[in-house]
Amino acid sequence: MPDRALSPDFRRATPEGDTHERDVCDHCGFIAYDNPRIVVGAVVTHAGRYLLGRRAIEPRSGLWTLPAGYLEQRETPEDGARREAREELCAEIVLDRLLAVYTIERLSQVQLIYRARFDGAFAAGSETLEAGLFAWDDIPWDAIAFPSVHWALHHARALDAGESGAPFSNPPGETGAMAR
Amino acid sequence: MPDRALSPDFRRATPEGDTHERDVCDHCGFIAYDNPRIVVGAVVTHAGRYLLGRRAIEPRSGLWTLPAGYLEQRETPEDGARREAREELCAEIVLDRLLAVYTIERLSQVQLIYRARFDGAFAAGSETLEAGLFAWDDIPWDAIAFPSVHWALHHARALDAGESGAPFSNPPGETGAMAR
Repeated sequence: MPDRALSPDFRRATPEGDTHERDVCDHCGFIAYDNPRIVVGAVVTHAGRYLLGRRAIEPRSGLWTLPAGYLEQRETPEDGARREAREELCAEIVLDRLLAVYTIERLSQVQLIYRARFDGAFAAGSETLEAGLFAWDDIPWDAIAFPSVHWALHHARALDAGESGAPFSNPPGETGAMAR
Repeated sequence: MPDRALSPDFRRATPEGDTHERDVCDHCGFIAYDNPRIVVGAVVTHAGRYLLGRRAIEPRSGLWTLPAGYLEQRETPEDGARREAREELCAEIVLDRLLAVYTIERLSQVQLIYRARFDGAFAAGSETLEAGLFAWDDIPWDAIAFPSVHWALHHARALDAGESGAPFSNPPGETGAMAR
């Protein structure tokens, strides 16, 4: 068993042959490469209505979001997006195309967001307080969890209206910082 | 200073509240989330010729590849693709669009490959033995480093010929395994 009295003790150092500083554990020399993380998700609709879930977990618990989460090891982004919709909203979705690639610089997060459809059957999963299928004007715009949820919903609407340019990137000047 | 006699000693365990097994260090309890890693790169052309570099580093040292590498923290994929072209081939590239999103399952790697142009000025960087600008038929097809380099070159040619569907994914049945 690990010695639980001992916690990792990281300092910044540049490993030999590397070009960037990394976190190196002072106890065991482990190098935490701490790479950017990949979030996969989808803007999912049925009969013109948008599927959203109200978060049961931090951060932004109680606010509405798209089905999305961290890509797992050895998982394709497409499989990950389908898994998140299944876990969070009990929905079996069909991916149309890659809608957007967003970068949340502060979190070193790259988001791959797909455009998807489903048959209309859904329910709240264990990390979701409540699930809903909303007409555009009924989306709870004042209670959206993250800026990138706004971006993705508007990009999906633009794509559906025939706008070119997908996959879209962050709107100009937007970094995904929460203060807005 | 770290005790260099001690190395990380990972075992598989599911942390409390998590849904997947992770590597947990037996010395200090550090949880290595070991997420998929993001590779960014580009198919770069000038006047119809393709920019490639011969790798000076393992894996696949001596073989030809696109400018590509791991995305760094707080870096956008676009900036990362430009940085890799600058570091490996001393080329200032202009991105046209996202060409492909490939998944190399065995390596838990997601590759974001762009279509790009440049002004024709290049040189071998420190991780590159030799750089070259090749007409399609002169590409060293028998000495390409990775399957995904083949995929990206052919997808770029398809895109240039007007084929729809970009960003492309892995060719059907292809997982990126090196045995082929």
